[in-house]
Amino acid sequence: MIETLTVLAPGLLGGSVAQAARSRGLARSIRVWSRRAETRAALREVSWCDSVHDIASEAVAGSDFVVVCPPVDRIVSLVEEVASSLAPDAVVTDVGSVKGSLVRHASAAVRDRAHFVGSHPMAGSDRTGHVHADPDLFRGRPCFVTPLPDTDPVAVQRVVDFWRALDAVVVTEKPETHDEIVAHVSHLPHALASVLCATLAARDRRWRALAGPGLRDTTRIAASDEDLWRAIFQLNREEVLRSIRAFQDELEAFQAALANDDFFALRAILERGRDYREGFGS
Amino acid sequence: MIETLTVLAPGLLGGSVAQAARSRGLARSIRVWSRRAETRAALREVSWCDSVHDIASEAVAGSDFVVVCPPVDRIVSLVEEVASSLAPDAVVTDVGSVKGSLVRHASAAVRDRAHFVGSHPMAGSDRTGHVHADPDLFRGRPCFVTPLPDTDPVAVQRVVDFWRALDAVVVTEKPETHDEIVAHVSHLPHALASVLCATLAARDRRWRALAGPGLRDTTRIAASDEDLWRAIFQLNREEVLRSIRAFQDELEAFQAALANDDFFALRAILERGRDYREGFGS
Repeated sequence: MIETLTVLAPGLLGGSVAQAARSRGLARSIRVWSRRAETRAALREVSWCDSVHDIASEAVAGSDFVVVCPPVDRIVSLVEEVASSLAPDAVVTDVGSVKGSLVRHASAAVRDRAHFVGSHPMAGSDRTGHVHADPDLFRGRPCFVTPLPDTDPVAVQRVVDFWRALDAVVVTEKPETHDEIVAHVSHLPHALASVLCATLAARDRRWRALAGPGLRDTTRIAASDEDLWRAIFQLNREEVLRSIRAFQDELEAFQAALANDDFFALRAILERGRDYREGFGS
Repeated sequence: MIETLTVLAPGLLGGSVAQAARSRGLARSIRVWSRRAETRAALREVSWCDSVHDIASEAVAGSDFVVVCPPVDRIVSLVEEVASSLAPDAVVTDVGSVKGSLVRHASAAVRDRAHFVGSHPMAGSDRTGHVHADPDLFRGRPCFVTPLPDTDPVAVQRVVDFWRALDAVVVTEKPETHDEIVAHVSHLPHALASVLCATLAARDRRWRALAGPGLRDTTRIAASDEDLWRAIFQLNREEVLRSIRAFQDELEAFQAALANDDFFALRAILERGRDYREGFGS
């Protein structure tokens, strides 16, 4: 049981964390803070938090469990901003899509006072903001928890238990392994969808009306907010670049097979792709 | 009104053509032919055709409208096989995904006897076979009609009218323009989805379970039959290679922007992609 849960900057994810905790009775009280006065005013009207604070460091004071939810490139600075106000042995986690340097910096910021344990729930929506939050957003979804070798094991367990109580499927990985995995299964597909749309945008835009459902599916994620994704790509730069190079090698193999009219090589790439995709279901 | 409609090799598309024609009363009689004896036996049980023929040339004899529906790399040989049995001034069309050389060869095969007018309805499904046919498969979907400069205008109009009667939205283009358009809006997205899956298949396959809906959407079309798509890529080779090169240029720009930590260039590509994608709706 958490005595006081604080959610900093509740948008879709943070709002869902608070709603999920409330609906499952995981915390005696829930506090929130938002930088924007309009958002704070709106939060004062909802039933899933008990107090709305004007100042982040006041929202965390005395809280035993803090979830930090701003855009991924503002997580470290927010942790630094509140670090000296954290309760002794408070557990701090986040929901950011990139973990490596973020976890090291955030852990250093709270060291000797509290515990930072990185998290990344693989859940979301094309909609943003706490008004779209959902207490079941994390149900059945993977959630990475990414301790460093010297992270306090009791703090790690509290974070693991927290996400499990929200019905997520917890996967514990090193921050660097997390970043390699999400570069391949999330950031690379996103980059390709955006680049495909940017390529097509340079051609006749009337062609779009002639596309079937395939183009619609492959590009759906390109409609996401460019500032959010620009930050994710920059924060996970090395792993994203590595995954792009692996993709380019495979694309060049495809290109060579096609240019050489190499029936078997072309078919083999398509077959490997189909075999991988079938492991998903539709 | 068509006196005798013949559908050669009815699978998902040909079966849907026959069902759509029957349900709309477009033809007095409907004949079908399939190369496989089991398929012919099954077709003898359905209500949407009046006769099932063992030999393709017998199925077209005396027919005034013929739709040729085998896999795209077998269309020309099937047209050549039946050409000498076609009724004088019969109109022959197809449903193949590539048009350029196919239209020239098929037109040459029937010349001085009948008229070939290429078609490509942008409709389909991940399911195949006439058992999944749907009389409304073409409703509201684009359908290319691709005459050559010397194609008989009356024959072109009959084909245009036929697809309109099936509730498709007809787009008339030169065969080469068709191939350029579908290379970009259909074949390129398919190649990228297959190559992405082939790239990921070479890494840890357990990562797949950690992916969100983005990877699922971007790769759905990679589950398609590799022989069908191998043929499409080979038949539209030059245009597909051109579209891949355009994509590679854009991907290299993305890669350079990321490697150089060029905030503005990176954001600009993502923004152009979002702007293009938003033109689709979800």
